[in-house]
Formats: sequence, C-alpha cells, structure tokens
Amino acid sequence: MNSPAADTNPDTPRIKPATLKGFRDHLPGPMLAREQLIDTARDVYRSFGFSPIDTPALEYSEILLGKGGEESDKQLFRFTDQGNRDVAMRFDLTVPLARYAAQHLHEIGMPFKRYHVATVWRAEKPQKGRYREFIQCDFDTIGTTSNTADIETLFVINDLMERIGFTEFTIRVNNRRLLNGLLETLELTELANGVLRCLDKLGKIGPEQVADEMQQRAGLSREQADGVLALADCHGTPDEVLDSLETRLAHSETGSDGVQKLRELFDACQVAGIPQDRLQLDPAIARGLDYYTGTIYETFLDQLPEIGSVCSGGRYDDLAGLFTSQPLPGVGASLGLDRLLAAMQELGLIQHSTSAAEVLLAHFDADHCAQYLATARRVRAAGISCEVYTDPRPLGKQLKYADRKGFRLVLIAGADEFANGTWQIKDLASGEQLEVPDDQLVDSLANSLATNDA
Amino acid sequence: MNSPAADTNPDTPRIKPATLKGFRDHLPGPMLAREQLIDTARDVYRSFGFSPIDTPALEYSEILLGKGGEESDKQLFRFTDQGNRDVAMRFDLTVPLARYAAQHLHEIGMPFKRYHVATVWRAEKPQKGRYREFIQCDFDTIGTTSNTADIETLFVINDLMERIGFTEFTIRVNNRRLLNGLLETLELTELANGVLRCLDKLGKIGPEQVADEMQQRAGLSREQADGVLALADCHGTPDEVLDSLETRLAHSETGSDGVQKLRELFDACQVAGIPQDRLQLDPAIARGLDYYTGTIYETFLDQLPEIGSVCSGGRYDDLAGLFTSQPLPGVGASLGLDRLLAAMQELGLIQHSTSAAEVLLAHFDADHCAQYLATARRVRAAGISCEVYTDPRPLGKQLKYADRKGFRLVLIAGADEFANGTWQIKDLASGEQLEVPDDQLVDSLANSLATNDA
Repeated sequence: MNSPAADTNPDTPRIKPATLKGFRDHLPGPMLAREQLIDTARDVYRSFGFSPIDTPALEYSEILLGKGGEESDKQLFRFTDQGNRDVAMRFDLTVPLARYAAQHLHEIGMPFKRYHVATVWRAEKPQKGRYREFIQCDFDTIGTTSNTADIETLFVINDLMERIGFTEFTIRVNNRRLLNGLLETLELTELANGVLRCLDKLGKIGPEQVADEMQQRAGLSREQADGVLALADCHGTPDEVLDSLETRLAHSETGSDGVQKLRELFDACQVAGIPQDRLQLDPAIARGLDYYTGTIYETFLDQLPEIGSVCSGGRYDDLAGLFTSQPLPGVGASLGLDRLLAAMQELGLIQHSTSAAEVLLAHFDADHCAQYLATARRVRAAGISCEVYTDPRPLGKQLKYADRKGFRLVLIAGADEFANGTWQIKDLASGEQLEVPDDQLVDSLANSLATNDA
Repeated sequence: MNSPAADTNPDTPRIKPATLKGFRDHLPGPMLAREQLIDTARDVYRSFGFSPIDTPALEYSEILLGKGGEESDKQLFRFTDQGNRDVAMRFDLTVPLARYAAQHLHEIGMPFKRYHVATVWRAEKPQKGRYREFIQCDFDTIGTTSNTADIETLFVINDLMERIGFTEFTIRVNNRRLLNGLLETLELTELANGVLRCLDKLGKIGPEQVADEMQQRAGLSREQADGVLALADCHGTPDEVLDSLETRLAHSETGSDGVQKLRELFDACQVAGIPQDRLQLDPAIARGLDYYTGTIYETFLDQLPEIGSVCSGGRYDDLAGLFTSQPLPGVGASLGLDRLLAAMQELGLIQHSTSAAEVLLAHFDADHCAQYLATARRVRAAGISCEVYTDPRPLGKQLKYADRKGFRLVLIAGADEFANGTWQIKDLASGEQLEVPDDQLVDSLANSLATNDA
C-alpha cells in the first residue's frame, strides 16, 4: 500500500527526537507571548514611520566577518555551500543592514528608517538565558546626523516600554562626545580605548579599583584617572549635571557639542511630557569601544535591574564603510526580546493561556457536527475566536482540555438544546452556566467575554 | 580616535555588497505586504484555535534527512558545526513538527492544533519565483482521525482566502481513499505509486497519454487504466459525483469510507454557508505519493490558475513514525506566501506605499524641533502613525520624500503657524491644504484620514 498505517511497534528502530545544544523549541504558551511582544514592537516602530526590511539568513562569510577578525569568526556558523561558496549564518542584524544599505542605496533613499525583526545565530557557549539562536528586534534611522533622530530614538524606547506594559523603568542616556572631549583636553585621545575598557567596569568594581586599573593598564596618571572618574561621577538632575559638564568641558568643542545635544534631548522630553524620573544622564556608560560615537541608550527595569539593559543602542558615524564610500551615519537601538520575556514572566505580565482562541465549542453529539462547525463559523464572523473540539468525546474530557489550554468559555449543545434552539455557555473561571437562545448566542458570548475582561 | 569619522575615500578597498545566489533582500514596500499577509494568516489560524510554535533553524541532519534519502540530501544546507555535529538547516516545517510532537508529546497533549510561520532553506537551482530561502506558513491538527478536523481545514482555507481579499477562487478537494479503494478492487494496490505517478500528469498530457503510460510504465492493462481514468473523469456537482462514486466503489470499504467522508465535508460546507461554487470535487488530484492518506486540498485563483495551487494540504496517518511509536495522524495545509504575494501584486491587491506611517510632520523650522516631536507624540497617542522628518531641509524636498514614500498627509508649521497656534494639513492625494487650530489637530487628522479612506 502506498500509505502505510502508523507503525506502533515499539521495537521499530527510531531516531531520537532532540534539539541541538543551545537551540530551543518554543511551546505555544511562550510563543503566544513572544508573538504579542513582537507585534507591540512593530506597532510602535511603524507609528514612528519605521518600515520593515528583511535580509537572508545566509551571507558570504567575507561580508559577515568584515574586520571583525578571529573573535567573530569563532562565533559564526560557517560552511562551504554546494556552489563552493564560503557562507555563514548572520550573527546580528547590523552587518546585514550595512550591506543592505550599501547595496540598495538608490532604491531606499536617505534618510532611511527601518526595523528588522529576525533570527540570528551565534556559536557561543550556551549559558542560562543565552542561546545559539535568538531573535533580534532592531530599529535604526540612517543617513542623517540630525539630533532629532537621536531624540526620537529615545521616544521610541519610551513608547516601547510603555506599550509592553512596563511603568517603572529608567532610560540611561549618555553621549560619547563628553568623554571624547575630556580625553582631548587631557591629551589622552590615543588611550581612549584603554580608558573606556576600564570605565566599563565602574559599576562592577567601583571607582577606586577603576582608578588603579587606569593607571596600571591604560597608563594614566592618578590625576588623569581622577579627572576621567569625576566626569562619570555626576549627580543631580539632568539639568544640574549638564550645567556642571558644560563648565568642565567648556574648552573642548567635542565635549560642548555632546552637552548641547544632550540638553536638546532632555528639553524635548520635557516638552513632550515624557516623565523626567524615567530619564537618567549617566556619563559613565560606553557600550562597546569602537562602534558608537554619539548618544548612547540603556534601559533598565526598576524592579529587575539585575537582568541588565533590555533596550540599548546609540549613534554611530559610519555604518557601512566596509561596503561603500558613501558616509552613512545613523542612530538606533535593539530590543532584548528574550530578556524582556523573562522579565515579563517574572513580573506577571504574561497571560498563561496556551490557547489562541477564547471559546471552545464542545463536540457533544457526533450527529450535529455540521451544526457545530457552522455555529463556530458564525461566532468567528463576529470577531470571536472559536475552536471546535475535534472528536465527540465525553464532555468531562473536553472541559478538562478547555481548562488546561486556558479557554474562557465553553459552548455546549446536545439533543435537548438542539430541540429547544438554545446553547449552554459555560464560564470556566466562575463555573457559571447560562442557557441562551441560538439567535442571541453571539451577543451573549460577546457580553460574557466583556464581563470576563472587567 | 576610537570613533573614526566615515572614510569616504573612493580608493579605500571595500567588500562588494551582494547577496548569495537564490537569496533575496526584502525592500520596505514588499515587506509591508508580506507582514500584512502573515498577520492575516495568523489571525485566521488563531480564530480557529491554532496556536503558534517555533523550532530551530538548525537540526541534526539525521532528523531532517529521515528516510528522505539522496534527493532530500542534495537540497540540504548541511555542514559540520564547531562541536563536530552533522547539522543542517530545515527545508520544511513538517519534519520539525514531527520531531517536535514526538519530543514534547506529554507537554502539548492531543489533539494539538498548531501554526508555524518560519523560514526554510533549500539548495535547489533557483528559478523564476523559486528561491533558496522562503517562508512557509503551515497549520495542522494532529492526534485525531476525526473528519471534523478535515472539514475545519477546508473552512480555514476558505477564511484565509476571503480575509486576504480574494473572492474568486476554487478549492479542489479529493480523498486518497477513493483511488486506494478502486485499486483494491482492481487488485492493483501494489502498483499504486506507479499509477499515481502517471495520474499526476493528467492535467498536463491528457487522458490518452496517461492511459498509455499506465500500460507501459505502471504495468496496467488497457481496461485497468481506463477504470482508473474513469474515476478521475467525474463531472457534475459534488453530490452527483459522490453518487456516481458511491456506486462505483460500493464493493470497497476503503473507497466507500472516502466517499462518506467527502459527503460529510460537502454537507458541512453547505450548512455553514460556504459558497458551493468555490468547491470542486476532483478525484484526480494526488499531491505527492507517500505522505497523504485521506482528504486532499488544492486552492486555485480563478483569475490566475497558471500560478498553481496557493494553499494545499491533506490528511496523513503517520506524522512522526520516525521518532515515536505513538501514532500521530493529522490533517493540515500550507499557504504559499510567495505565490500569493505575486498574485496579489498582479491583481492590484497590494498598496504601493513604502511608508509605515500615514502622516509626515515636516521639519520646517529647526528652532521648533521639540514642538514638532511633542506634537507627533500627541498624534501617535491618538492612534495615528506619524513620522517627523529628521532634518530641517527645504519643504519641497520633504514633500517629495513624503510623496515617494506614500504618506497620505503632511503636517506643516512655521513661524506664522506657531504665532497663530495653528497647523497646515496637506493632503498629498488631492493637493488640498487645510489650516486648523492646534487643539483640533488630532480630530482634523483623523477626519482627513477617514475621508481619504472612503
């Protein structure tokens, strides 16, 4: 026979079903939460005029490696394809954006605002909360140096957090030009990377040890180290900090420009009514050494600061210098989907339903299958999601299924109800049951769901 | 300096930005259409109670290859990873579903209804409309043999097509048990695969040549070949065809069961009010040799039949026999995203905007940047998407940008308007311009967009 029945013999040799180390299956419950989070992010991005793009999962290795060198190489899932090409799976969405922008420069035009929600792969050692496959959720404005784009980036982050459902969060902002300006005045520009590397540890090891490291490793004098640390040690309202920075960096054009841009940003937030206590000016944050050149953003949940920044980014001068001589400055940020989902889970912001539908229509009487299916279709036409249980099983079993999956209402009709032209609506949360005439079914369901919501 | 300015020297050696053969970048316009199509599909799936899942892009090659053999192997992007594992990128979503169902059997429970929208990769020779990377959009109900699930699958296909915006389409339905029953009565069960291979060409080469091939290649007698072709050559309404098939297959239990199941399906469609002229019973369609065992679906656009089926699927007895002794029968179908997008393009069902926002707020006067950003925030809070142009450029340039991207309204205010507390709303389609007080701005925009829609 061309279609063999299922082979249920336990002795048949089979392949053990397993996922690769560092890779995950997503079950319906967490997946519903993930889809909802991505939908929210896309809604917010679009509301600001960011458009979606997509790029291939596989690229020429040469493109992904760029000048990344050995460290990036180790992280790549890289191989030779059937056409003997050296290819690799993308490890972020920034390099593909750079390649894309250079390749389609004339089609997309500048300024160009895009979001990109897509999977990336890194052959890293898996750890708690770190996987070899995860989704990135980036937005960028490229082709402009205008501070307006920097301010808007902060507005996007604020809206993202609000719309996801967070109320208590802090967006830390900095501008790399502050530190660069200071290093210029201290004539330490050439030691910048070493200084930044030390400064990055400030939160972990404290100012004393950072000062020590700056002397021992970066080659600063004690006085210079103190000067750098004093910049990072600003306290007060953003206005107070900016006034103090303005004085301190008055002799540096770069530094003064950084102060001016931050001032515009905080002013615009005030005019737009973004709660000031969510914003924090933190001259110590750097976010990597080579890439960012201007504004920098990090976002922390007040209740869960230990999970780290959930939305980070900044301004860069040169996105695509590897691929084009056209200067492509830009600003953007990335939403940390996995971290956010873990946080939402912990803060009880995720519904625990694994069902995509609200109503289960019980398959009570096999003879009425067509009526069940037709009724479910009528319910769905009114915008109410409705699943018909597949098999005419005992009602108890179907109610258990409904309960386990998190349906809110079960719709039941047997011979009596069909004779009377009625339906039973069972509310799974309250256990209450209501009998309604068939012609009032849709309205009753809508009412029950609305009451249920309240 | 640690943050070098862009290197615009045209002589700097650069990497040529290029995508791999058979892979595509997605520009914002087509991407907006793709996202909308996927959103619609997900809405429909969820309304029937299908829940989302996801699986890794990379799996053990052994799992993906299964018993597929050489042909599947050639199509795989397969390599050895850093941990010396033989891995490959998924080439469909069916094998991953089988592995997933076997692995998480007790977590997910049965029946299990899932949808899966994800990218797959095939190292095939690229052709027009065929790529090495594309998205599949599948839904399945597994763990039940109930015909209710088969009928619902057809309801889902109908709703998908309607909600996407198609009105003229035909869903061709068959049940493999008809042909299997006939072959049983003709004692040709062992030749089934050969017969099916010939029958699959009926649309292309016609009944005479198929009869020839059945004799020459499948080893049938002329009489047997005619018997098989007679089954495929049923004309009339579904009821007429089913009556004729019932008589013809009366001596085969398998065949009679197939007829009965199709009768239930067509009856349920009638009760539910699905237009009968959309449904066609076609005993000739087979859809592959080994996998499907019961109901079969194909969907054609009446205006573009040449692009082939845009949504196909069927019932299978044994999803995961490779991985578990637990029998997992099921039924499902797959939406052909790329084909549908091409068809929608051709039928004018795709809007040509490349902007995700409706309103562009012109950056007219650099001194009012904060007010522009605050106003855009107010507009967005009312649910209207609004982009602020990044740079204070000449208005003509900004209007050109708005026009090219497909914005509907442009919001303008300069010194005069700020003095009067008003805004200019420019409708890009009509060219009309309206001056409104600031406190009526949001309502006026909503009105303009609503009028515009009509």
